[in-house]
Amino acid sequence: MRVLVTGAGGFIGAILLRLLHARQRIGNRPIALLAACDQRLGELPAGIAAIEGDLGEAQVMERVAALAPDVCFHLAAVPGGAAEADPALSRRVNLHASLDLFETLANGAARRGAGPPVVVYASTIAVYGHPLPDPVRTDTPARPPMTYGAHKLACEIVLADFTRRGLLDGRSLRLPGIVARPRAPSGLVSAFMSDVMHALKAGEPFTCPVGPSATAWWMSARRCAQNLVHAAVMVPAASGADAASRAWVLPVLRLSMEELVGTLSSVYGVDGRQLVRYTPQPAVEAVFGRYPPLDDRAARALGLRDDGTPSALVQRALDAGFEAAGEDDAWR
Amino acid sequence: MRVLVTGAGGFIGAILLRLLHARQRIGNRPIALLAACDQRLGELPAGIAAIEGDLGEAQVMERVAALAPDVCFHLAAVPGGAAEADPALSRRVNLHASLDLFETLANGAARRGAGPPVVVYASTIAVYGHPLPDPVRTDTPARPPMTYGAHKLACEIVLADFTRRGLLDGRSLRLPGIVARPRAPSGLVSAFMSDVMHALKAGEPFTCPVGPSATAWWMSARRCAQNLVHAAVMVPAASGADAASRAWVLPVLRLSMEELVGTLSSVYGVDGRQLVRYTPQPAVEAVFGRYPPLDDRAARALGLRDDGTPSALVQRALDAGFEAAGEDDAWR
Repeated sequence: MRVLVTGAGGFIGAILLRLLHARQRIGNRPIALLAACDQRLGELPAGIAAIEGDLGEAQVMERVAALAPDVCFHLAAVPGGAAEADPALSRRVNLHASLDLFETLANGAARRGAGPPVVVYASTIAVYGHPLPDPVRTDTPARPPMTYGAHKLACEIVLADFTRRGLLDGRSLRLPGIVARPRAPSGLVSAFMSDVMHALKAGEPFTCPVGPSATAWWMSARRCAQNLVHAAVMVPAASGADAASRAWVLPVLRLSMEELVGTLSSVYGVDGRQLVRYTPQPAVEAVFGRYPPLDDRAARALGLRDDGTPSALVQRALDAGFEAAGEDDAWR
Repeated sequence: MRVLVTGAGGFIGAILLRLLHARQRIGNRPIALLAACDQRLGELPAGIAAIEGDLGEAQVMERVAALAPDVCFHLAAVPGGAAEADPALSRRVNLHASLDLFETLANGAARRGAGPPVVVYASTIAVYGHPLPDPVRTDTPARPPMTYGAHKLACEIVLADFTRRGLLDGRSLRLPGIVARPRAPSGLVSAFMSDVMHALKAGEPFTCPVGPSATAWWMSARRCAQNLVHAAVMVPAASGADAASRAWVLPVLRLSMEELVGTLSSVYGVDGRQLVRYTPQPAVEAVFGRYPPLDDRAARALGLRDDGTPSALVQRALDAGFEAAGEDDAWR
């Protein structure tokens, strides 16, 4: 099985790549070739093929075509804030490069007489409106309020049509915000969701821009990567071939900030009530503190998973040693 | 006001072009330039600029850019059956050329420091699933079951995002089947909807592939063209910037075949019960004989209209003299 990860230099992509490299299989099929594509990849473990460059460049797409992947995890994207700031860049990368990738993969497989390549597409909960409908279900009508979500939704629709035609086997996962991003300044307003975790683990004080009862959806990057891998082998119902029937919201833990702080306190033996000062900012709280319940039964029925417990979320998000403990092998 | 019609050589496009040429204004603004674009345009009335060629060709798009339209009616498309038979062609025309057109119009206006060009986009009821949900409303979740509808929906979403950003002023109309197409063999299964009209007007017998109680949505091409023109000047609510809030189903007459035949009989003084033999084919009836009620209040509130009465539908669809009678001026 030949496997390609686009956006493999990114936060989630790098963890996914490491996970695939450690397992050397997807489901029960061994990986014969693992390839990574991104603008910058840094140093990769031995045995991973590297395609360094922009998916929008013809020669990069040619190398992808030559790779002839059976499974492609398509994560490469301009993130939400950057897409909103530079919509032409989002069109080039999030829309056109993605559509070109789908076409390249479909045409390549058709030419080789191979079955339809599996495409696991990292979509986003940003396809839903703002404020989020209550509750959010997979069949909640998508009303993307920002360029990032609009382009992701357009790609979902085209991918589902390739799937209906039997040219690709597309699976779109609508990802929530994922923790814990590295502590470097990212410019993301949502960075506080990761920063509070790093701060409490280190026993440092933290000023929180949402109140203690603000609720959000939480998922660790490692669990997210596991879900992406699982999405490649899960077996969706054959019926239904439209975008909505090929896209899923991931199961998540819905936790208040107070619950998260309490969990961090007990996992790392710190006094969160002492360390965290809540100074809610209405604008931040409106976007990142009002996540409604999520009806994720369709995703759970296919075997997609949340982090299980708040303490498992925290450990999976922050503890590099978790992988060494064999945790990843527990869920194949 | 500079006006461009793409697909101006097509069934609806040609009628729209004639209507704009006759009126020489949109709303109360005079048309300074009227341009037509299509692969083949034939002979055009004097004063209409012609861009003959494929929107997918760079030099055609350059001529569109040079035209700098304030209003673009975008009708050019590979129709449903042909799109399903040749999805690569649909991707090239219905998806990529449309996205390129939006981008070209937006970039051109931004460069000139002009306001956002109005784009009236001919979308389709094929964005809804099959069978059609009952009732169909504008906010009924779109689940396109065919390539044509999938590509149209993706374009709607991207156009709505251009609109939200203030780069274009997009208005997507989800068109139903339109009558009466010329009597030439089109290969369209739905051709019977036009053919029954031509046959009864001529007093000829007709074998109908759906039963007398089969219901469909009906709109004349001339009313459709009037709605497209009106869509350029109607004033949608400012709130809501997602695709669903920038797309409308048109009001339609929902008539049974028996009602239509009765109307044709009385308008043209023929005996429809004698002339029409019903031999319902389940496959045709399932797709073209089960149109549910349509909740079109949102469209009506904006001034979009159906044909008024069954006899007005028939006359507007079949009578070339209708326009000379000044009918088009009744609705500005």
